[in-house]
Amino acid sequence: MTGRPGIDPLLAAALARTGEGVDALFDALLPVPDDDRARLIRAMRHAAIGGGKRLRPLLTVASAELFGVDPHHALRAGTAIEAIHVYSLIHDDLPCMDDDDMRRGKPTVHRAFDEATAVLAGDALQSLAFEILADPETSGDPFVRAELVGVLAQASGAGGMCGGQMLDIAGEGQSLDMPAIVRMQQLKTGALLSAAVEMGAVLGKVPAEGRVHLRGYARDIGLAFQIADDLIDHAGDAAAAGKAVGKDAAAGKQTLVAAVGEARAREQAAMLADQAVAHLSAHGHEADLLRAIARYVVERDR
Amino acid sequence: MTGRPGIDPLLAAALARTGEGVDALFDALLPVPDDDRARLIRAMRHAAIGGGKRLRPLLTVASAELFGVDPHHALRAGTAIEAIHVYSLIHDDLPCMDDDDMRRGKPTVHRAFDEATAVLAGDALQSLAFEILADPETSGDPFVRAELVGVLAQASGAGGMCGGQMLDIAGEGQSLDMPAIVRMQQLKTGALLSAAVEMGAVLGKVPAEGRVHLRGYARDIGLAFQIADDLIDHAGDAAAAGKAVGKDAAAGKQTLVAAVGEARAREQAAMLADQAVAHLSAHGHEADLLRAIARYVVERDR
Repeated sequence: MTGRPGIDPLLAAALARTGEGVDALFDALLPVPDDDRARLIRAMRHAAIGGGKRLRPLLTVASAELFGVDPHHALRAGTAIEAIHVYSLIHDDLPCMDDDDMRRGKPTVHRAFDEATAVLAGDALQSLAFEILADPETSGDPFVRAELVGVLAQASGAGGMCGGQMLDIAGEGQSLDMPAIVRMQQLKTGALLSAAVEMGAVLGKVPAEGRVHLRGYARDIGLAFQIADDLIDHAGDAAAAGKAVGKDAAAGKQTLVAAVGEARAREQAAMLADQAVAHLSAHGHEADLLRAIARYVVERDR
Repeated sequence: MTGRPGIDPLLAAALARTGEGVDALFDALLPVPDDDRARLIRAMRHAAIGGGKRLRPLLTVASAELFGVDPHHALRAGTAIEAIHVYSLIHDDLPCMDDDDMRRGKPTVHRAFDEATAVLAGDALQSLAFEILADPETSGDPFVRAELVGVLAQASGAGGMCGGQMLDIAGEGQSLDMPAIVRMQQLKTGALLSAAVEMGAVLGKVPAEGRVHLRGYARDIGLAFQIADDLIDHAGDAAAAGKAVGKDAAAGKQTLVAAVGEARAREQAAMLADQAVAHLSAHGHEADLLRAIARYVVERDR
């Protein structure tokens, strides 16, 4: 990802550093045992290590930077969010869900292993996320640890990501209006991206009223991210995306691109990125990484 | 369950009270929303409300009683463990796992709804468990909340329940020796039962060194519970069990009953129950409920 023309050098370095940090942490947290559980751990490692943009951990790291948080604490919290994200991909790819064969340029877990192992690997990665957050290594302050768990659990469950996936499945083949699509995407993708930003502030012990502008930022980049994802699926190529593309239309999935057309969707994504940056006006250079992420989210091609 | 001949009246009352409390809490935590997420929430309610022995929440309530914990706090922590247990049953019953049609006398979630909804309902119940524990309503002390999350997450993941399920699947059709079977069962069932007992002590702010005898109690009833479960599967009837029986042998699953025969397994379960009770010798009448549970675990017929 580094060295790609047009990518902000600050962002390129942060993406590379965060990616390496997340991989190293998953590697340390998932030693392969000397018994038949090895299959489960290998499946977790297959999905968790060496792939993905690590956008969620990067958001936590960038948000935590605003408040002078220990980078190791931010990386651990970000890795917990990534564990949730990775588990959701494993389960999303299952034959009973999207039935995908490729993910992040590799066979999906149920293809590389089997369905039962994929279900268990996803389940165990969700547990791992909360185990990471509850560990004093993530924060010496138990109040912070408990609040991190609360924020991530709410963003992951029926009121967040899982609820959004249900709306997505229920909406297949239906004609949803714009507000319904936005609502679905805010839960399915936005909830976890918002949690990633919010958890940086939780680590910084910023009270809820001091997080309002970050919530605005997170909401805007969440929606922009989803539009960009839909545009990649609509027009992108499978090799760059590392997964099958053009599947949304085939599955009758409801996307903003389908609802308003490619040109207007592109405009709206750019507008949302500008709006996200505007939420950061009270911050100086310490928010440059968050600003670069907002632009990257809409300009990326995978 | 109340009024059954032979059941200790103290235990019967506690089982009924805990069952009602868990149902009421799940009912309050899972209001059916006014959008398409309703399907997900209905699936979660289908699995979580009105069924099961509620043995895990009862263990937390009984253990917390030793230390004068607020019963509402204990019930909430116990309900979190039950949410983990219920999610594991939903995923265990999936076609790619045990492929079961009936559970707790009702159709399994993927039969009553569909597979995708069953995967999501399990996932969202796991999130709910940690959301409950992170909530200040479960304990006013953030250190307690964070420790509850840590204990439950460790017991649920690759080092606990999920790891045990992997060993169980990997062992199908193989001939495991006794230590391997015990190890598998200690992870698959024992880890969560131990967490249930331990979380009562966490709520009571008992330091780790004061929990050693409770760990011994939990380990013994965990193994006794699994032997009793295998005996029910071996000899029980489906109507009483509320699920299909005789499936373990058909699936080539490794059980202690298969390894040592029914008579010796029955003896061993009774011995483990006595041993569990012996761990409580430092306690007076406040441990009577835990003692009654140890006997119930091996004498139950479902």
